[in-house]
Amino acid sequence: MAGAGDQARQRFGASPVARLATVGADGRPHLVPVVFALDGATLWLAVDSKPKSTRALRRLANLRANPRVSLLVDHYEQTWSALWWVRADGAGSVVEPGTRDERRGIELLVAKYPQYAAMDLPAVAGAVLAITPARVVAWRATP
Amino acid sequence: MAGAGDQARQRFGASPVARLATVGADGRPHLVPVVFALDGATLWLAVDSKPKSTRALRRLANLRANPRVSLLVDHYEQTWSALWWVRADGAGSVVEPGTRDERRGIELLVAKYPQYAAMDLPAVAGAVLAITPARVVAWRATP
Repeated sequence: MAGAGDQARQRFGASPVARLATVGADGRPHLVPVVFALDGATLWLAVDSKPKSTRALRRLANLRANPRVSLLVDHYEQTWSALWWVRADGAGSVVEPGTRDERRGIELLVAKYPQYAAMDLPAVAGAVLAITPARVVAWRATP
Repeated sequence: MAGAGDQARQRFGASPVARLATVGADGRPHLVPVVFALDGATLWLAVDSKPKSTRALRRLANLRANPRVSLLVDHYEQTWSALWWVRADGAGSVVEPGTRDERRGIELLVAKYPQYAAMDLPAVAGAVLAITPARVVAWRATP
């Protein structure tokens, strides 16, 4: 998240949910909501191992074919002057299983989400993704 | 939204905000929150004419080069068993200015959003987009 203003970085990291866009080999965009943890320059996500759905596999296949991703955090309310969003564009990769990076990602996700702690994330995580934003763009309706 | 279950269709249409993913000619995903109106098989969006930002232009340039889009509506809360999302994948196009389609899209957006009515949407709309979902995928944590 280097390059982002303090406010944008804080807003992004504090959000419990983001939307992840990847691109298929066929040029189709794929979109899914994700939970994530932010750690300095890296964003961590976990893909559940169960169920091994087409959905989860698609995201991994897309990433392997094209590492480019976009992650969006946004705030909506009826008062449009209060709208804002922060987008992180960069490259994502599937972390090697059993590595220190994988443990680090899981640790950060469990620390942010008590829900993950309750479900024993290390046991259910099918894959951990690490995303390095190359560019962070922030927008707000009221400057 | 043909093919979607009634619940998925209702959830999608009732949401005030969705996230739109397009793909650049360079294969990069682009992601932005959007307001939209649903009308039978068509989703309508407006791109503001002011400011003529890079952001708005990027979305239009992407669409012209690659009409494939993905639109996501999701629900997040701390109780993960209550999570759900609905995604519409399809093709988008920029509506010809001055046509009946453009007026229809603007009418529907103004009807859904009093905020648009207040800002005189016909005057500020730089472009109206029409999206035809070819596939709607719905997911919920609790079957």
